[in-house]
Amino acid sequence: MRDVAIIGVGQTKVGEHWDISLRHLALEAVQAGLADAGVRQADALYVGNMLSGELTGQEHLGALVADFAGLRGIEAFRIEAACGSGAAALRMGYVAVAGELADIVVVVGVEKMTDALGPDTTAALALATDGDYEAAQGASFVAINALLMRRYMHEHGYVHQDFAPFAVNAHRNGANNPYAMFRFPVTVERFVRARMICDPINLLDSSPICDGAAAVVLAPADAGRALSAAPIRIVGSAVGTDTVAVHDRRDPLVLDGAILSTRRAYEQAGVGPEDIDLFELHDAFSIMAALSLEAAGFADRGQGLRLALEGKIGIEGRVPVATMGGLKARGHPVGGTGVYQVVEVVQQLRGLAGANQVENARLGMAQNIGGSGATVVTHILERVDE
Amino acid sequence: MRDVAIIGVGQTKVGEHWDISLRHLALEAVQAGLADAGVRQADALYVGNMLSGELTGQEHLGALVADFAGLRGIEAFRIEAACGSGAAALRMGYVAVAGELADIVVVVGVEKMTDALGPDTTAALALATDGDYEAAQGASFVAINALLMRRYMHEHGYVHQDFAPFAVNAHRNGANNPYAMFRFPVTVERFVRARMICDPINLLDSSPICDGAAAVVLAPADAGRALSAAPIRIVGSAVGTDTVAVHDRRDPLVLDGAILSTRRAYEQAGVGPEDIDLFELHDAFSIMAALSLEAAGFADRGQGLRLALEGKIGIEGRVPVATMGGLKARGHPVGGTGVYQVVEVVQQLRGLAGANQVENARLGMAQNIGGSGATVVTHILERVDE
Repeated sequence: MRDVAIIGVGQTKVGEHWDISLRHLALEAVQAGLADAGVRQADALYVGNMLSGELTGQEHLGALVADFAGLRGIEAFRIEAACGSGAAALRMGYVAVAGELADIVVVVGVEKMTDALGPDTTAALALATDGDYEAAQGASFVAINALLMRRYMHEHGYVHQDFAPFAVNAHRNGANNPYAMFRFPVTVERFVRARMICDPINLLDSSPICDGAAAVVLAPADAGRALSAAPIRIVGSAVGTDTVAVHDRRDPLVLDGAILSTRRAYEQAGVGPEDIDLFELHDAFSIMAALSLEAAGFADRGQGLRLALEGKIGIEGRVPVATMGGLKARGHPVGGTGVYQVVEVVQQLRGLAGANQVENARLGMAQNIGGSGATVVTHILERVDE
Repeated sequence: MRDVAIIGVGQTKVGEHWDISLRHLALEAVQAGLADAGVRQADALYVGNMLSGELTGQEHLGALVADFAGLRGIEAFRIEAACGSGAAALRMGYVAVAGELADIVVVVGVEKMTDALGPDTTAALALATDGDYEAAQGASFVAINALLMRRYMHEHGYVHQDFAPFAVNAHRNGANNPYAMFRFPVTVERFVRARMICDPINLLDSSPICDGAAAVVLAPADAGRALSAAPIRIVGSAVGTDTVAVHDRRDPLVLDGAILSTRRAYEQAGVGPEDIDLFELHDAFSIMAALSLEAAGFADRGQGLRLALEGKIGIEGRVPVATMGGLKARGHPVGGTGVYQVVEVVQQLRGLAGANQVENARLGMAQNIGGSGATVVTHILERVDE
């Protein structure tokens, strides 16, 4: 097993791209990633995507994107783990390069949610739940998160307004990210007044339905230094899973999959939460941000929200989260998200995060969650000092 | 990189299982595979599946199947490459074990095509084509194969009856396979009279719509010998891709993806077509069987059908194909097929193929194709002599 570096990153602006097809989104990200890496060929391409079959009438994205991106002939598959598909594809790319089965691997996460052919997008997203025991009972994905949020408030004595800091932080950071979907700040007052989506989740607790693609190019760390002016090393890559149905968990307010995934990544990297300089967490809904902070060891059970209320999740806080806007403000093109998170950690570790730069960021973590915690993929990246 | 062995295999009977859900099919195959391997835990589970989102309302199969099979917590993803999804999942499992990222990996290919919720199955299968440039023009998957078959007949001077040997051979072999969907022989006369599906493809040129799951358990070859009485070594594992749309190919009657995939697998194994004792090819339609024989080097362009006509594809022929019934008679539960093929090669190499045993089989090849040749995954397996 050898060390792996990220030698190039690329991303499209996240938004409602009614005039750009899925393959064009993927192409734009792959081309940007290859150009950033300064390479033209690759041994394999793994595509993270959840809903292309349902929403755009296209499975078989591996070969399709490989060909469209000028990489015809290479190994290419789609990797799916619901909203965790992007990081799952990265995990497969990491495995291939670390295990010396491939040298250069392109990973692209892409989702096209507007201009959908098929079912409405809320129904499609419910495919991330347990179809027989959750969706079949009428539980949409937002409904499941609403139940978790309500229970969190009940058990730990919070009120809805206490969740405001996640949205305020994400929008403040997204405002400075040219690739973000929402580039405006929001206030606590606006959060409180936001339209209700699924009680107690309101519009500003929710990430948007949108389109986007992000790509990273992987290479052996040894070669990375020669290929890239600023290679970033992957020092932890790990997956944890849990029951898909929330009602089967030992504790609905504890993300065991995230605990497993983070612990495995920390062990591989030889670090702990105290060493992490920024944490791109999976804030698809604000309740998920709170639960993620707890599962990753930044707060005890029920205290993740406290961390946010105490101002510790900002760029200058103890654990900056959603530093480029997160799922909330950068946007959440589901299969793309896990790769966007990693692209943003790379920006931070390269010192290229502009107004949102976390000072002296050396170690960044990205955590992508499929479903309400059933698949959790964690990557820890490290700046390579010369 | 280390050698990888298959230490256990499992499969369900292929058929129309109206009363068995997708997760139960997967469970049955995984349990059989683990029992055959004599292990209870695994480091990762990769699920090959194409259409669970569209047909059964369930994405996120990795975590779902892992949990249901008693493997909660482990790394688990779904791998998709249209009808090549099963072997694609095996490829990812091979990469993880060969690269020393995992020791024990379970790979399950599963598809549930009856009892579909959503679109009709023909429309769902068209997601394997280029959605914007083939399906959007009204071309179903069978229509594309029909065009290829017609052109093959035209260019090479064959008549439809010349394709009969593929169906006759597959059904003869399927009759002896207790896991096959169709366990009866067919004659040339019956082939000629079969109902037309999409001219010139008739019912007996076509694999059936069905349900099924197959699993293999992988381990390092060193450990394989201790764990299994009859480990089978994977000596070649390779992928080739091509354009998804047939009209973009340099020659519609040449499967460049299969040529790449097979050549890479031969090179890795240090063998050529002359060394292969049996070839589980992707006979989703009989035209694909002919094109596969040519791409894999068993016949020149236009001569794959000749091989069949000369009786060389039977159990005692030069290159036995579909030895347990193939996609035609064992059945083609699309995401399951690639794993079924490998399970059957293992049966042959273990000498457990019963009436269909290929004598002294030492080296077997399985080739799983996504779409009409856009993703081709090839595995070469070798019997390990003590």
